[in-house]
Formats: sequence, C-alpha cells, structure tokens
Amino acid sequence: MELTDLQQLFVHELKDIYSAEHQILKALPKLIKATSNDELSTALENHRQVTEKQVERLETVLAGIDEDGRGQRCKGMEGLLEEGSSLLKEDATSQVLDAGIIAAAQKVEHYEIAAYGTLVSFARRLGHTNAAHLLEQSLIEEKEADLKLTEVAEFYVNNLAA
Amino acid sequence: MELTDLQQLFVHELKDIYSAEHQILKALPKLIKATSNDELSTALENHRQVTEKQVERLETVLAGIDEDGRGQRCKGMEGLLEEGSSLLKEDATSQVLDAGIIAAAQKVEHYEIAAYGTLVSFARRLGHTNAAHLLEQSLIEEKEADLKLTEVAEFYVNNLAA
Repeated sequence: MELTDLQQLFVHELKDIYSAEHQILKALPKLIKATSNDELSTALENHRQVTEKQVERLETVLAGIDEDGRGQRCKGMEGLLEEGSSLLKEDATSQVLDAGIIAAAQKVEHYEIAAYGTLVSFARRLGHTNAAHLLEQSLIEEKEADLKLTEVAEFYVNNLAA
Repeated sequence: MELTDLQQLFVHELKDIYSAEHQILKALPKLIKATSNDELSTALENHRQVTEKQVERLETVLAGIDEDGRGQRCKGMEGLLEEGSSLLKEDATSQVLDAGIIAAAQKVEHYEIAAYGTLVSFARRLGHTNAAHLLEQSLIEEKEADLKLTEVAEFYVNNLAA
C-alpha cells in the first residue's frame, strides 16, 4: 500500500478499524454466551449494538471520501480476540471467567480508543469535519464502554471472584 | 491453566503482560530505527528504558507471590506488533511513516493501560498492597507515554504529514 500523504494513512487506519469492528461483531456473541453475570452480558450486548452503529458510521466516513472498508485485515484485533477466545478454553470457574472476560474486553476497548483517537486527529487535520464528528462519537462510546466494564468489574465480578 | 480463583487469574494476567513487555522490548529498536523524527525517536527510546524498569517491577511482583513470568505467550501483543511491523513494509514517505508509527505505538500503550488497570484492581482486591503500588506506577507511566505520543503527533508529525 502506498502511504505518501496523511490522507492515505487515514484510509489505511479506517480500513484497519473497519476490519476490527467486524471481527468484534463476530466474537461478541461467543463472549456473551460464556458469561454467567447478567450485568456483564447486558453490557456486552449493549456494546454489540453500539458496534453495529459504529460500522455504519465508518461506512459513511469511507463513502464520503470515495473509499470502502474492504481489503485489509486488522492483525491487532485478531491477536486480541485470539487471547480472549483462548481464555474460554481454560479450566475456569464461572466467576473467574467473568473477571477474565472483562479484562479481555477492556483490551479490545482500549484498542478502539487508540484507533478512534488517531482517526479523529487525522480527520481534523485533513479538514474532514463531518468525518471527525462521526469518529468522535465512536470514540466517546468506546470510552463509555470501557468505564462501564470497570464499573461492572469493581462492584460485582471482583467481589464474587475474590 | 486452572482458573478457579482471582489469585490464579492475577498470575495469568501477570504472565501475559510480562510476555507483552518482553515483546515490546524486542520490537522497539526496530521502530526507533525507522523513525525520522528526533522527538519521536527520543520518546520511544525513553519508553524503552521505562519498559525495562517495568519488567523488573513485574519480576518483583511475581517473586512476591512465588511465581515467575515464564510459560505464557501474549497473543494480543503479538498481533499489535505484527500490525506495527507490517507498516514498516509499506511504501511510505518518512513523515507519513512517523505518523503511522505513533498510531501503532499508541495501540500498544493502550493495551498496557488496560492490562495494568486490571492488574492494579486485582492486586488491591487480593490485598497485595506492595504489588498494587508497583503496578500502579507502571500504569501511570503508560498513561504518560500515551500522552507524550499524542503531544508529538499533534504538534509535530501531523503538521508535517498533512
């Protein structure tokens, strides 16, 4: 791939997170099914719905610059989700597994926080005002999802698992 | 691996970040060599030195609970660093490459922020006061490193690459 200006890097990073979001959508149902904590499964299910909206937003941003999300596989998210799914294979009690699922999910959220943070900054620099606005909405949602998971962990799962 | 209480999950997550930090130490010199921006290479070199201290801290924490860091490969970090190193193979101009290296490095930082955040919370819950203190120092350093990279990106690299 040619990366000779910031616009090309912007497209590169958009395709990366587009692939990441699709991988997350595929992985979340398995994680939700593995949880035994209602609050956690609700938080993950809510995030699945939010992720669907984020994919639509990315499609809007990409269409606005005559691009689409195809052609790139996000290796970073692949590794993060591989780590999460290997946890499901461990010999774990349900409460410890819930705590582990939260830890894995927060790594995924933080990937997205970093990715959307960079994308908002690039969109602003490139003068793509509408794209910057849309990407910032997703950034805010990822930060909220991370805080929600911390809240579930602090007040519920860790108490059970200690 | 058996995960039947929070202590075992704590060890599991410690071994994970221990592997991640070692992978980062191996990857950073290549990234530093690929940068053309002095401020960025200084920030990455400083972080390399900080990472060495973080590895020592993890060894102290692990020794304190009669464990060591061996036996686990962090798949999440493997994917993140694979993504970073594939960037170095693209046909990129030096300034765009610098902006891409920052984006990749911030994904690495955010992995560590999530990991140390979880570990501090587990250490506190388990009553490992000294471990919680050490892990919190690393958490603060990771957040500082992320902010430093944002600063370099906002005030220097993105201006050049736009």
